[in-house]
Amino acid sequence: MTTQNWWQNAAADLNEGVRAQALDHQNQLTKPPGALGRLEQLATDLAACQGQVKPEIRNPQCVVFAADHGVVGQGVSAFPQAVTVEMLKNFVAGGAAISVLSRVNQFELSVVNCGTAIPCDQLEGVIHHPLAAGTADFSQQPAMTCDQAQQALKVGADQLQRLQQAGCDLFIAGEMGIGNTSAASCMAALLLQQDVASLVGPGTGVQGQALDHKTEVLKASVERAQAEYRQPLDALIQVGGFEIGAIAGAYIRAAQLGIPMLVDGFIATSAALLAVRLNPSVREWMFFSHGSAEPGHQMLLAGLNAEPLLDLGMRLGEGSGAGVAISLMYQALALHNQMATFAEASVSGAES
Amino acid sequence: MTTQNWWQNAAADLNEGVRAQALDHQNQLTKPPGALGRLEQLATDLAACQGQVKPEIRNPQCVVFAADHGVVGQGVSAFPQAVTVEMLKNFVAGGAAISVLSRVNQFELSVVNCGTAIPCDQLEGVIHHPLAAGTADFSQQPAMTCDQAQQALKVGADQLQRLQQAGCDLFIAGEMGIGNTSAASCMAALLLQQDVASLVGPGTGVQGQALDHKTEVLKASVERAQAEYRQPLDALIQVGGFEIGAIAGAYIRAAQLGIPMLVDGFIATSAALLAVRLNPSVREWMFFSHGSAEPGHQMLLAGLNAEPLLDLGMRLGEGSGAGVAISLMYQALALHNQMATFAEASVSGAES
Repeated sequence: MTTQNWWQNAAADLNEGVRAQALDHQNQLTKPPGALGRLEQLATDLAACQGQVKPEIRNPQCVVFAADHGVVGQGVSAFPQAVTVEMLKNFVAGGAAISVLSRVNQFELSVVNCGTAIPCDQLEGVIHHPLAAGTADFSQQPAMTCDQAQQALKVGADQLQRLQQAGCDLFIAGEMGIGNTSAASCMAALLLQQDVASLVGPGTGVQGQALDHKTEVLKASVERAQAEYRQPLDALIQVGGFEIGAIAGAYIRAAQLGIPMLVDGFIATSAALLAVRLNPSVREWMFFSHGSAEPGHQMLLAGLNAEPLLDLGMRLGEGSGAGVAISLMYQALALHNQMATFAEASVSGAES
Repeated sequence: MTTQNWWQNAAADLNEGVRAQALDHQNQLTKPPGALGRLEQLATDLAACQGQVKPEIRNPQCVVFAADHGVVGQGVSAFPQAVTVEMLKNFVAGGAAISVLSRVNQFELSVVNCGTAIPCDQLEGVIHHPLAAGTADFSQQPAMTCDQAQQALKVGADQLQRLQQAGCDLFIAGEMGIGNTSAASCMAALLLQQDVASLVGPGTGVQGQALDHKTEVLKASVERAQAEYRQPLDALIQVGGFEIGAIAGAYIRAAQLGIPMLVDGFIATSAALLAVRLNPSVREWMFFSHGSAEPGHQMLLAGLNAEPLLDLGMRLGEGSGAGVAISLMYQALALHNQMATFAEASVSGAES
């Protein structure tokens, strides 16, 4: 079905017949049925995604989307805005957490500039699609125009076209943007229609009076935005970020292209909720990597009916939680594909 | 300090100076302090174990200890006793879950026969130290003699001497033994002085009336054993298993030799509690891999003040939960050792 907006087009279908075959295979492996817990479900879910009884991840790709946020002018972050571009350099140079994880867990890493406050268009190794020099200060006005919001979605979708052509079979979105826990908190408040005070957290390390101040700024921002809120895309327009919009667009296009995705932490999950509110069919292509220490994350996950794989108290972003959780997918598939069956190993089954 | 029994000798000391240096290093990496959550603590704990600011795991080893249990004659397991030896063959042939994980996560796997009901002394690729053809039926009499209990501890300790000579720097114990969730449940009941009914679970898949029957058998067993219970070793003698005793001995010797260990699920944790009750200094060399779906595991972990790394609903044993969790250790160390510092990457720190 083709609809007016590309992002409303249905996601690819999962292969339920193959899921059933994969489950039957799991139940023949030399272990009590269900004894590998969530690792079994990971394997059968990936089988349904790939349409293969023995699925494999051969070409996982992580794209880190970066942008700046005008609201940091209100003093809502512990780090200066210059860090966004400094970290882009660190990603490219291989020194950031997600860079290390990409080497350890063998996924490709690329970095997209969606609009940094300090221009960085000459920075090599980065894909440049800046929409503006950061968003507007959403405590005072909409973060972006409707046109910019649609452009942001498209920046993400275009990356997925590139990834599909490269043979990508698992997508991870990462993000970088000083101030983006503020944007994610406000977006979550609008999309979930919850009090933003229950969704705000320390981000990179805001504490005490500074956290109280962050909460006050975000309450005022959501109050302003609520008056303009009519539909999910308004959350992005009013209080979002360019990188968050790009991730939402990337998730939608991944599902349309039949590429499963491993959703990272708080910011990525706010983009996942936006994507699912724009297009509910996207949801079943999503795997959730970890529960962040950022307090709003649990509410976002509940809103998506999602149970993440890991709970390690991580709160870094960049895609780092997904970059760790992918190791569980590899192990789930190795077990599913390599374990002997009861018949192969001549092991007796359960007594009836 | 040398004491009467080898298992009471103190564990090696952790290097607290190096831990502090490792923590200082962590706080210079390009991320907000603490943003990698438990992965940071894993790295600094391993630094304290190894006495190296940048610790490495180069030679992890898993030993699966296997034995049978006389109590299965009471109908407490879903699988026939023949499976213990059949699975030993599967471990050696490479088709079991722990075999697959040893390949994926690059740890050595060895298998020790501590006493199977069906003789298997000719099985190649297995280390044979059988104490008897399985334990006695502990619903009727002590599972083993005091002498056998001490032999079981020594079988495990001797393996650690072998591993140390091979350069092992992380130890995982696995277990195989039809009926050993029954033994672990009863040992936990005695060591924790808790009602065994709150500690019993399905094991390999006992459900409904069969689970009620298992609970009744274990209640009677603990009631019999309680009258004989004077000290921790009595839990092993009265209601334990040869493989559980071997694991406890292995844990104690690992700590004495300064080899950190990654404790697996319910059975392994019952051995860990026995080890710590016999020698509390062993505790700080233990890492805990996962929360098992077996209901008694949470109480054992609480008794050890332990928070496991993973919660994936696994309930297989063999060392499989630890075999998965080791991947988090690798990733924690890669991040700790390979990330750039703020100074190296010219990234601005937090604003004061």
